[in-house]
Amino acid sequence: MKTILVTGFEPFGGSAVNPSQQVASAVNGERMSECRVVSQILPVDRIHGPEALLAAIADYHPDAVLCLGEADRRTSISIERIAINLMDYRIPDNLGEQIQDLPILQDGPAAYFSSLPVREIYAAILAAGIPAELSLSAGAFLCNQVFYMGRHSVARQEIPIPLGFIHLPALPEQVALAPAPFASMSYETSLRAIRLALEVIAKTL
Amino acid sequence: MKTILVTGFEPFGGSAVNPSQQVASAVNGERMSECRVVSQILPVDRIHGPEALLAAIADYHPDAVLCLGEADRRTSISIERIAINLMDYRIPDNLGEQIQDLPILQDGPAAYFSSLPVREIYAAILAAGIPAELSLSAGAFLCNQVFYMGRHSVARQEIPIPLGFIHLPALPEQVALAPAPFASMSYETSLRAIRLALEVIAKTL
Amino acid sequence: MKTILVTGFEPFGGSAVNPSQQVASAVNGERMSECRVVSQILPVDRIHGPEALLAAIADYHPDAVLCLGEADRRTSISIERIAINLMDYRIPDNLGEQIQDLPILQDGPAAYFSSLPVREIYAAILAAGIPAELSLSAGAFLCNQVFYMGRHSVARQEIPIPLGFIHLPALPEQVALAPAPFASMSYETSLRAIRLALEVIAKTL
Amino acid sequence: MKTILVTGFEPFGGSAVNPSQQVASAVNGERMSECRVVSQILPVDRIHGPEALLAAIADYHPDAVLCLGEADRRTSISIERIAINLMDYRIPDNLGEQIQDLPILQDGPAAYFSSLPVREIYAAILAAGIPAELSLSAGAFLCNQVFYMGRHSVARQEIPIPLGFIHLPALPEQVALAPAPFASMSYETSLRAIRLALEVIAKTL
Repeated sequence: MKTILVTGFEPFGGSAVNPSQQVASAVNGERMSECRVVSQILPVDRIHGPEALLAAIADYHPDAVLCLGEADRRTSISIERIAINLMDYRIPDNLGEQIQDLPILQDGPAAYFSSLPVREIYAAILAAGIPAELSLSAGAFLCNQVFYMGRHSVARQEIPIPLGFIHLPALPEQVALAPAPFASMSYETSLRAIRLALEVIAKTL
Repeated sequence: MKTILVTGFEPFGGSAVNPSQQVASAVNGERMSECRVVSQILPVDRIHGPEALLAAIADYHPDAVLCLGEADRRTSISIERIAINLMDYRIPDNLGEQIQDLPILQDGPAAYFSSLPVREIYAAILAAGIPAELSLSAGAFLCNQVFYMGRHSVARQEIPIPLGFIHLPALPEQVALAPAPFASMSYETSLRAIRLALEVIAKTL
Repeated sequence: MKTILVTGFEPFGGSAVNPSQQVASAVNGERMSECRVVSQILPVDRIHGPEALLAAIADYHPDAVLCLGEADRRTSISIERIAINLMDYRIPDNLGEQIQDLPILQDGPAAYFSSLPVREIYAAILAAGIPAELSLSAGAFLCNQVFYMGRHSVARQEIPIPLGFIHLPALPEQVALAPAPFASMSYETSLRAIRLALEVIAKTL
Repeated sequence: MKTILVTGFEPFGGSAVNPSQQVASAVNGERMSECRVVSQILPVDRIHGPEALLAAIADYHPDAVLCLGEADRRTSISIERIAINLMDYRIPDNLGEQIQDLPILQDGPAAYFSSLPVREIYAAILAAGIPAELSLSAGAFLCNQVFYMGRHSVARQEIPIPLGFIHLPALPEQVALAPAPFASMSYETSLRAIRLALEVIAKTL
């Protein structure tokens, strides 16, 4: 049986929850086509976030990896196309560090494209009536960094496995605390979207 | 037993669904505290929309009225504070008419404030972790018109009953068809918010 | 010779400038058709803001009044249609008071429509290639309050004079200091728009 | 004397004007510190856009290149950090072609970072009170494509010259024609920002 590794992040930036943590935890142990899903929650800091992803890849030997993260202010499921070799944190990470204008890897390539079938995932989510977009930027914080390090790591393997990233909008309960209202998506809708993405990925394995 | 009348609207503007129709239909027959809820779906046209509301008020003799409508592009449950004496349609109504710069009632007052406990409704929805806002404009289309005509009608009764309006964001499936993504709210979240609003209203009766 | 009174506001909310002050000051003494323009800058507080407007009307005996204010986050010249009888300040005024849910006038009408030719002003500004919109809400802070009190005052005169309100976007230099970028309009563009509005008003006198 | 090549684009997408064309034309022949500026306007099509840039670099032997483009809906001067190896046009180019999901160069690297001093340019524009942002995506249309091909070309030179891209918001007259208002920036403000960027670039040469 094939394995898909799904990762989410711990809460950060003062929030007590993170939709990517909730969705990743919910799909842990589920079956999609002939695949089983295993999940791992990553810390939101420069050192341990990428480390935990690479350790999970080493532990589970997955056949594909889908990383999830939270993107405040986005209105739709954002299927990321590309990870870039840049750290430029708009807020401090959970270790309190706020890095500006540094490469993730001193001699790494400028970017890696997602190796998941992003167009098919996008079409499947939209077809289910869930707002989605193909996104050209995963930011320059931990989400991008984990995505970049994951892609860098699997690109060097003998048989590289597909790996990519999807951003989820904030949860309604996170937005309800904001001084001015912005967009949110319910946990149930995000979970439904990610199950559809996993079905698409499972079928390609 | 007291009665709360809840209204929603038919789909319009090319959409096949309307969250206000779905939510109003869902609460039909429910009990809140010592109140029962009755629902009525209104046509989206200048003539029959307000008529249907006034007929429902005459039929059901409700003790309070909560009108619901759909507000594309809004991110939050919008508790409307005020209805204004203006028709300035940004799109044609379902009869194909697009009115510009006309009063709803030639000699009516410029505006009516909501007579629902808007601040308490707002607090109850936010406290449940659902994004909400107190809104200063219900637009100048059918939503505002029905709100205005309802308030005008009850203001002239001997014992005026509380009446107000809440706008719901578009449903995810409506946004998924849009050329560019904008905010949505799931049916379940909107329904939960309206049940909370009805609880607040029921307690004041 | 006829007189048009133009008012702007002092800076508020921590800003050192206010586009409405700059534009109102710039048109002071100008001639439009057969009219002269006189300007008055109003304090941003609950007591002295409306007082200063009413005093200027008493002093100058204007034939029309155009009040200007600043509306952060708006992208366009916003020609306001209506002033409402509500104070619900989102920030403290310059006296440090932040009022919630109070009427401006205990027994005043719910609202007053602008008595300026708003549709013609809108068309003239758009025709000059300047982004504009007819707005349904002037907020519930000082701008709305001054607009409401001005309309209330002239409505009671024997020969009521036209009075209305236009909101200007923030200036670029105000936005440049914001943590996240939002829309602005240059002083020159806003000034050009207000001169066009004054030409339209002058022609109706 | 050193030379800075500035490029702009022809109008596209149904518009009759393009702020990047106007600003690039305005700075043609100007002197910044010890540098002269030469300008070139590029066609908005897949074939001739990149060709015209590479031809101008071959003709003028510039010491630095600043490409400009128009980004509708942005509120600020957007200093682009990175060009990616992807064509995914949201509208047809001026030859009527709308490419989806193709690399610009079959075997090119995934991305190139700007080699202009982006942080210094950003600081200089902000310090002058002009809204600016460091942007992580130049899109996947002609702007990104020209930026990518320019960077690819100079990266292969023996002495690579700095090359980068800045997006300008739409002009007010473009926005005034839009069905719903969105942000714009005046020609004068954009021009002032680009002159500041050129001063920063000139000082590094």
